[in-house]
Amino acid sequence: MTNPLVFFAPSGKRGRFPEGTSVLEAARKLGVDLDSVCGGRGICGRCQVEVGDGKFPKLGIVSAPDHVTEWNAVEERYVSKRGPLAEGRRLGCQAKLCSDVVIDVPPDSQVHRQVVRKSAAIRDIAIEPVVALHYVEVREPDMHEPSSDFRRLQEALEQQWGLKDITAPLESLRLLQWSLRQGLWSVTVAIRHKREIVGIWPGLHEQGVGLAVDIGSTTIAAHLCDLASGEVLASSGVMNPQIRFGEDVMSRVSYVMMNPGGDVELTTAVREAIAELAVSVTKEVGLNSNDILEMTVVANPIMHHLFLGLDPTELGGAPFALTIDGAYQTRAAHLNLPLSSGAYVYVLPCIAGHVGADTAGVVLSEGPYLRPEVSLVVDVGTNAEIVLGNRERLLACSSPTGPAFEGGQISSGQRAAPGAIERVRIDPVTLEPRYKVIGSDLWSDEPGFDKAVIRTGVTGICGSGVIEAIAEMLLAGLITPDGVVDGAMATRSPRIEEDGRTFKYLIREGEPRIAITQNDVRAIQLGKAALYAGVRLLMDRYGVAAVDRITLAGAFGSHIDVKHAMILGLVPDCELDKVGSAGNAAGTGARIALLNASARTEIEDVVRRIEKVETAIEPSFQAHFVGAMAIPHKSDPFPHLEAALGVTFKRGSGDGEGGGGRERRRRRG
Amino acid sequence: MTNPLVFFAPSGKRGRFPEGTSVLEAARKLGVDLDSVCGGRGICGRCQVEVGDGKFPKLGIVSAPDHVTEWNAVEERYVSKRGPLAEGRRLGCQAKLCSDVVIDVPPDSQVHRQVVRKSAAIRDIAIEPVVALHYVEVREPDMHEPSSDFRRLQEALEQQWGLKDITAPLESLRLLQWSLRQGLWSVTVAIRHKREIVGIWPGLHEQGVGLAVDIGSTTIAAHLCDLASGEVLASSGVMNPQIRFGEDVMSRVSYVMMNPGGDVELTTAVREAIAELAVSVTKEVGLNSNDILEMTVVANPIMHHLFLGLDPTELGGAPFALTIDGAYQTRAAHLNLPLSSGAYVYVLPCIAGHVGADTAGVVLSEGPYLRPEVSLVVDVGTNAEIVLGNRERLLACSSPTGPAFEGGQISSGQRAAPGAIERVRIDPVTLEPRYKVIGSDLWSDEPGFDKAVIRTGVTGICGSGVIEAIAEMLLAGLITPDGVVDGAMATRSPRIEEDGRTFKYLIREGEPRIAITQNDVRAIQLGKAALYAGVRLLMDRYGVAAVDRITLAGAFGSHIDVKHAMILGLVPDCELDKVGSAGNAAGTGARIALLNASARTEIEDVVRRIEKVETAIEPSFQAHFVGAMAIPHKSDPFPHLEAALGVTFKRGSGDGEGGGGRERRRRRG
Repeated sequence: MTNPLVFFAPSGKRGRFPEGTSVLEAARKLGVDLDSVCGGRGICGRCQVEVGDGKFPKLGIVSAPDHVTEWNAVEERYVSKRGPLAEGRRLGCQAKLCSDVVIDVPPDSQVHRQVVRKSAAIRDIAIEPVVALHYVEVREPDMHEPSSDFRRLQEALEQQWGLKDITAPLESLRLLQWSLRQGLWSVTVAIRHKREIVGIWPGLHEQGVGLAVDIGSTTIAAHLCDLASGEVLASSGVMNPQIRFGEDVMSRVSYVMMNPGGDVELTTAVREAIAELAVSVTKEVGLNSNDILEMTVVANPIMHHLFLGLDPTELGGAPFALTIDGAYQTRAAHLNLPLSSGAYVYVLPCIAGHVGADTAGVVLSEGPYLRPEVSLVVDVGTNAEIVLGNRERLLACSSPTGPAFEGGQISSGQRAAPGAIERVRIDPVTLEPRYKVIGSDLWSDEPGFDKAVIRTGVTGICGSGVIEAIAEMLLAGLITPDGVVDGAMATRSPRIEEDGRTFKYLIREGEPRIAITQNDVRAIQLGKAALYAGVRLLMDRYGVAAVDRITLAGAFGSHIDVKHAMILGLVPDCELDKVGSAGNAAGTGARIALLNASARTEIEDVVRRIEKVETAIEPSFQAHFVGAMAIPHKSDPFPHLEAALGVTFKRGSGDGEGGGGRERRRRRG
Repeated sequence: MTNPLVFFAPSGKRGRFPEGTSVLEAARKLGVDLDSVCGGRGICGRCQVEVGDGKFPKLGIVSAPDHVTEWNAVEERYVSKRGPLAEGRRLGCQAKLCSDVVIDVPPDSQVHRQVVRKSAAIRDIAIEPVVALHYVEVREPDMHEPSSDFRRLQEALEQQWGLKDITAPLESLRLLQWSLRQGLWSVTVAIRHKREIVGIWPGLHEQGVGLAVDIGSTTIAAHLCDLASGEVLASSGVMNPQIRFGEDVMSRVSYVMMNPGGDVELTTAVREAIAELAVSVTKEVGLNSNDILEMTVVANPIMHHLFLGLDPTELGGAPFALTIDGAYQTRAAHLNLPLSSGAYVYVLPCIAGHVGADTAGVVLSEGPYLRPEVSLVVDVGTNAEIVLGNRERLLACSSPTGPAFEGGQISSGQRAAPGAIERVRIDPVTLEPRYKVIGSDLWSDEPGFDKAVIRTGVTGICGSGVIEAIAEMLLAGLITPDGVVDGAMATRSPRIEEDGRTFKYLIREGEPRIAITQNDVRAIQLGKAALYAGVRLLMDRYGVAAVDRITLAGAFGSHIDVKHAMILGLVPDCELDKVGSAGNAAGTGARIALLNASARTEIEDVVRRIEKVETAIEPSFQAHFVGAMAIPHKSDPFPHLEAALGVTFKRGSGDGEGGGGRERRRRRG
């Protein structure tokens, strides 16, 4: 009698095994991706498979449910505890081969399952665990052979899981003694990179969770993820408590420089906030912060240094030397974070003194290095981080856009929060505006608008609102291509008002009055010119005249209307349907690094290959900056945009107040 | 013209190099052991060599001082700062080859120099640095190429020292920024195992020090060593502050079992004591505790666990399961020890639940595994740890000797301290005793004795004194081979006094009266029988009837007179000149592990190979114990001893009070 043939779908791997071999065993020997935490004891239920029923002529197999052994007592016990399996499923560790059979491994039984991202994403996240759970039964101590608890655990891990020379930190060793006895010599250990114990529980423990953290200058966001499924179990955010030491990162660096010990205060503040997030986000799903087995972090360079406890002072001035740029990992306990006994924190690499681990997260999430076409990825904040390139070559720089895009230095500006005007349209004939406010889906000229905004009021205008307003003002002829609010238009609309020696455009009457002043336009021009100049610098360096794709990342990038951004000349011309926003791509990058071990080496390699361009010392930056002061640009063509809008832009002279304001604005966070 | 030939002594390595190659460079290329911290910059002076002058016919070389380049300005600068070099010496990095030459590398210029041990030692300690110092010049930060301080340091270490992928803990990274700027882009880094930074200083730093610590139940000893020369710079000891929780280790385990959190108290106490030792011992030589780059620790299993913060409760009862037995290393900061920023603590492996890292230290120091002859190594304390074997095979056990050897449960007993009787002789004719007291070199019957002991008084008798007294009593016929103080001898000497229903022998009249009572003899018999039974168990297991060499380790072992110990039957018969004491061999083992990286893997391997014997469950232990109650032994022959003394021992029945006392005494520390 021949050994039965087993064919695994979807992997296509096949092989013959002696009758009585379990499906799980066969899968392991063939390298088929079939999960298991309990190691084949029929208790974790991770190895569920479907047994093919029918003829598979291409495979030459006739498969049937009874080509594996019958439903057994272990499976009976499993379903009595956990509820029934889905129709047609078996526990792979219990079903044993009798004759030729086709076995389907459903996605939820695969270790390397894909995590489906909600938004239209460029790449899915595949699971490739950094930390995996392993249930083991450990030999009891024996006076005849006095090996230690840990050595017997090591032996069990080697025999039962093929894991050799596993190490453990003292914190885990402290728990080992208790866990072994509590679990009657069975424990589950969480093992990191197949090397080191980072968590330990008596008996079977099935869920491993990790935390992806995005430390922004203003807010800190944390996503609690199931390390096996990739599912986001809970998300939470808090204000960065460092704000009490300074609104933007540069004022925090100043605080450190002026106050001995200030760096320690800032470090403590950010770590405490993350510790609280870890507690609250786990509590939300009935877990404890010490269930967190791994944490990943993205942050801008100054937040990165402060989080790690490194003095950020050098990042406050030229030559902006980072203390470290590579990815860094250290124990959570070392950072005073209340995670699992041996948990590590992995911090993504920084790219340069102004281009941080947050940008590395964006790059990992958006994957411009995977594609043949040339992508432009821009993370717009007080500084814009700009990445340009493709799988051949990638460039990055940072450009000091100033606070205008976040509503700073704008007469009616405010942060993007309920009550802020975020969308603006201007009728080119009547010159009358309409707008939308965060918190309502209605335009201001639609019925019910006033009622809809009663709760929030209309409190100001945020960055995306200002950008749309100025772009619409250009299309309506209310400002010149040089950015001058055209006083002559006062004859056509009462909304053009004198404002000292300049003019402004009134968007909203009432309290507060909201207008776009000449100074507002200038502030936005300075910011967008800086950003555009940075982009052009990279395009020059790369040697392309146009880009194939543009992604706007970050909170601001996800609110902005890409068409208006392009009209303003924030980004270069591109096919409009190739321009999109990526939302919190930095946070997504942290999640990918949390779930996928290879993604870490991938982003580390990519970041090392990125060519860093320092805008401050590039002679051509100034010329690009001046050209980009015009709206959309003094000379650069916008053929795709013009075609889409059916207009031809007039060109400005680009000699507005360019250089002067620039140095004042360098490097705010 | 041919390239000059250089011959290095004492290594015998030779090679031809282009004219102008420095002696240091040539040495490195040939793998000659020539030290350097500054990397050939003429500032550290570690690479001093002697240039041969004369004919070397066997080598075919005529060597002369002018066969290397002339004394140069760098050497001039060096001697102006550091004082002259020894006659005939040059800096190897400055002297460059001109023609054929013989170069002698003096021992103090070798990295792997031998450390000469003071006492007659079985093996010398060779230096093989775990941590080495490297001076590097680091590129300044550059906005055109924004790599971090750490990356530029890594590059410098690779280029200047061939050290790749060096890592650093956050603590060192914190110091890096400051050190680079303070040192004008030159720093010295201490690198551990050619991998990881554990210390950093601006500019050149020449001395690396480490600490070897022996945590005893009673005292903690620390030796500060120069990591390059091996020299002990300072030694210091303190009482183990855990004594306030219990005199012996078992009472400390009881404390932990009875008091929740007691383990943390005990852990904190021992770590604080070590921290204070680290501070005081470095202060003594003008250093700071954070100059300590590496620490090694030996300790018995309970001290080992408490030091590492592991619950020792399991070690309080069968099956005496250790939490870990392998060597363990972790950062000093992790143990709250104030050493260098990245310093590690390496703890030697434990052998079994009663045979700890201290015994591993003894084994490393005494090296029984290196020799063909069968050695017995005994570390006598409240428990005796016994190691038997040779390079083929090594066995170990622990035997519960009880407190008698340390003066406990002895009527006039005391610890070995000034005032204690440590030597006793009894005239076999007059039956009069004479004795020596710790603190004086005079015998009690010598002139001036009374004056010599005025300061200390005569306060009691310590373990070695009791052993000598009982051995002498046997030789004088005052006790029978069964250990009965012979009342009949009262007719011959007034020093034999009635003591209830038994008799005692008076060693000293006056205050305090010091006598050896029948109970004292019994206590010593129980202890020595336990020890001897353990030894015999190992000899049986090994299959030898006699041992070739005996070493007594530990404080007690170094005070004991080997002949008297053998008369008592503490150890088996052996050629007397093959019996010796090793002093604090455990501490020496810690020192070896501190100075020599290979010694660590060596002892780890040896310990794993040691066969552990658990006396408590060996059926033959009891029989051996009973036989060993007699003095010297009921039946075992002592031919070497008898020949040396010119006597033939009578044999006792060995049925004194054997087994009963044993369980009471198990496992005190």
